[in-house]
Amino acid sequence: MHKVTRIKIKELLDEGVARQDATVKGWVKTKRGSKNVAFIALNDGSTIRNLQLVVDLTQFSEEEVKHVTTGACISARGNVAESQGKGQSVEMLVTNLTVYGIADPEKYPLQPKKHSFEFLRDNAHLRPRTNTIGAVLRVRHALAFAIHNFFNSKGFYYLHTPIITGSDAEGAGEMFRVTTLSADNPPKNEEGQVDFKEDFFGKETNLTVSGQLEGEAGALSLGEIYTFGPTFRAENSNTSRHLAEFWMVEPEMAFYEQGENMDLAEEFIQYLVRYALENCKDDLEFLDKRAADEDKQKPQNERNEMSLLERLNFVVENKFERVTYTEAIEILLNSKPHKKKKFKYPVEWGIDLQSEHERFLVEKHFKKPVIVVDYPKDIKAFYMKLNDDNKTVRAMDVLFPGIGEIIGGSQREDNYDKLIQRMEEMDVPQEELWWYLDLRKFGSAPHSGFGLGFERMILFVTGMSNIRDVIPFPRTPQSANF
Amino acid sequence: MHKVTRIKIKELLDEGVARQDATVKGWVKTKRGSKNVAFIALNDGSTIRNLQLVVDLTQFSEEEVKHVTTGACISARGNVAESQGKGQSVEMLVTNLTVYGIADPEKYPLQPKKHSFEFLRDNAHLRPRTNTIGAVLRVRHALAFAIHNFFNSKGFYYLHTPIITGSDAEGAGEMFRVTTLSADNPPKNEEGQVDFKEDFFGKETNLTVSGQLEGEAGALSLGEIYTFGPTFRAENSNTSRHLAEFWMVEPEMAFYEQGENMDLAEEFIQYLVRYALENCKDDLEFLDKRAADEDKQKPQNERNEMSLLERLNFVVENKFERVTYTEAIEILLNSKPHKKKKFKYPVEWGIDLQSEHERFLVEKHFKKPVIVVDYPKDIKAFYMKLNDDNKTVRAMDVLFPGIGEIIGGSQREDNYDKLIQRMEEMDVPQEELWWYLDLRKFGSAPHSGFGLGFERMILFVTGMSNIRDVIPFPRTPQSANF
Repeated sequence: MHKVTRIKIKELLDEGVARQDATVKGWVKTKRGSKNVAFIALNDGSTIRNLQLVVDLTQFSEEEVKHVTTGACISARGNVAESQGKGQSVEMLVTNLTVYGIADPEKYPLQPKKHSFEFLRDNAHLRPRTNTIGAVLRVRHALAFAIHNFFNSKGFYYLHTPIITGSDAEGAGEMFRVTTLSADNPPKNEEGQVDFKEDFFGKETNLTVSGQLEGEAGALSLGEIYTFGPTFRAENSNTSRHLAEFWMVEPEMAFYEQGENMDLAEEFIQYLVRYALENCKDDLEFLDKRAADEDKQKPQNERNEMSLLERLNFVVENKFERVTYTEAIEILLNSKPHKKKKFKYPVEWGIDLQSEHERFLVEKHFKKPVIVVDYPKDIKAFYMKLNDDNKTVRAMDVLFPGIGEIIGGSQREDNYDKLIQRMEEMDVPQEELWWYLDLRKFGSAPHSGFGLGFERMILFVTGMSNIRDVIPFPRTPQSANF
Repeated sequence: MHKVTRIKIKELLDEGVARQDATVKGWVKTKRGSKNVAFIALNDGSTIRNLQLVVDLTQFSEEEVKHVTTGACISARGNVAESQGKGQSVEMLVTNLTVYGIADPEKYPLQPKKHSFEFLRDNAHLRPRTNTIGAVLRVRHALAFAIHNFFNSKGFYYLHTPIITGSDAEGAGEMFRVTTLSADNPPKNEEGQVDFKEDFFGKETNLTVSGQLEGEAGALSLGEIYTFGPTFRAENSNTSRHLAEFWMVEPEMAFYEQGENMDLAEEFIQYLVRYALENCKDDLEFLDKRAADEDKQKPQNERNEMSLLERLNFVVENKFERVTYTEAIEILLNSKPHKKKKFKYPVEWGIDLQSEHERFLVEKHFKKPVIVVDYPKDIKAFYMKLNDDNKTVRAMDVLFPGIGEIIGGSQREDNYDKLIQRMEEMDVPQEELWWYLDLRKFGSAPHSGFGLGFERMILFVTGMSNIRDVIPFPRTPQSANF
């Protein structure tokens, strides 16, 4: 049997030249035409662009064509010719047509009209077939690949830190418990409490909120590592910025101090954006138009000053601003909104910067991405390196327009005694972190790292508004469908 | 302040030429020498090779040198010269020496002697500093990168399928429950059972055992996708082949039938092995020697016929054997061990192949990797495509020497009615898989996919014996340390 291999639509359209006897396979987006000829827009997921199939209806029986409706999956064979129509380089003159799977027009959810994102979330199993979600997922892939490419080319090692953890030491938020104990009748100890010694791991375990601490062990042996995996927050936050399950990238580097940590973060983000601009041209052009349309629906003062593509190019072409927390507070204290009491939250040295403050710094004052460093120790985690002023730590937050904090990181405390003191001050239990302390006892070194929320990065690059629309199957409070 | 940038030891040794004023940073493996000169073997994780530092002790105070002991982290500056000693291209004549972190020789766990793997597992935070685990983790990184490279170059999209799932439909094994309900006092419903409606997601949820079903939704929209992420089994298996948390790669492809699925699996594995051979030369040479040493400890009849490197080259250079399950049973029935009643488990059509059967086929009969297809439907999952014989399904297992099943996959049932029938026969609940059924209702297509157990692949490539030694922080029954 002769096997006909399919050609991807992306390849055909990129080539843009005539070709004898090709086979394409994909899903019907639309069908239109007259009594004698049908024009089918076919998409196979390889690109946002459709291939136009031209079907001479005098050559096909009605039976062969009637199931070719929106959503149906078909195989089409024919000759590829230069197209007469505008907006496409080539089209296929179909000689053979096979319907693999029908899509009853009465029942198929994705009809050729505009659907709300809420509706598409309820149909997450089908929504990658839409222009917008398809484009977003292709960009997501490109950014993920760019992450691996970036770190591999620099000699970083991809380290798989554990998802199930016996520690809740980082205290980055509420955690999900992982258990095999019976929910209805768990074993109890003598005090009448659930006996976690009987659980699968012999103790209480949770889903990780960060691979950083284990990542430090990797850096202090392999030199430079990164993690890229799922992380979890059991916070009951029903917002367009929060997911219960999301992906995080966490590089951790021996021998990096604060300055080198900032340099890496900036180079990394610029690399990702540049990679997307170079490799996702079609998808980003579509998303740029989409975002512009969405913007037009907003009141004038909420619209973006720059288009999506302009924002992306801006990030690639401009150095990020670097300020200390103390300088940032000065700027805020001298700002118009502060003097006119337009900020909802008070501004003084020692506060955690609120979203409104970050947005002022990024969008109004500097008008570019900003790296804020040297935060007050009391508002940051125990593992961040104490500065000589004894008041601030070598924390680093990268703030982005429209997104807020996209990266959080720090130089880590590498001095055993100082780390112990911070843990005591902040009530961090030391016993379960014996191994983390060991890293400061045996061959400690200056080291730094940061975390990038992958979905926030995708939001920025795609111009999408809701984080639930940039991950294939979102997990949020009351929702773990599919 | 002039900033001295470090050079990685890999770069220095690969160059292998003299160089003025370089700085290296890393961990001391050993120190030896005489009253006047010390030779320090320094490793920074970038390569398994050490850089020899030559320290003229007449130029340094005792104070400066006394803390340079095994495990200490140091920075060394000096001139790089061609080496007189054998086994190294260059060495560094040290002019400046800084100790970042000491490692008290009385307490540092990793002394320069042979440690058991059990001991190293108890020190998983330090073990990547050892030759063997360092080499394994660098190979692990290389294989992970190769996976992304392979699929990206073929136009597959990396799809992040969910970790937390509301479905336990695949039935691939026992699952971990994910919950935020109080363990001691969970809310109860009117029947006195735990009320999962009060749980975070409004229902009972588990950790995924496979991303395949969601992957199929990706393939039937984007064309070709792959997952690469953590998966979980709550099986109480304390063996050298099982982990509770492990990483799996699952490609899923629209328009692939059985033959194309086999072709892809074979090309994929060969690509990974070839990538490791080309990119991990030093580490694989070390692991080859290590495996040979380990082999010598075994009784003659348990030793490998080929060395590790020979096995890897063999896989790259030879086509995999392809047989049907029915042919495999014939071979087993006609085999010596069967006739001499040496198999522990009986052989007849319909059995699940046992490890002893798989090993006979791979190691004795064909003496190469084997792909077995068309298994009896009763021993395979509900989603596998039924053959016309109504007895077998288009399952595909790839069997490897020493490892057994390294890949399991199949063409998927794309016919709605047949899928429903299989679900009914196998008692698979249909309601929660409504969306999976939708994929056969709306634009169904022939499609296939498979899963590769990443750690099993690493076991094969590194020649390691225990799966706990090829993942940074293993999770097994009673053990979730670090």
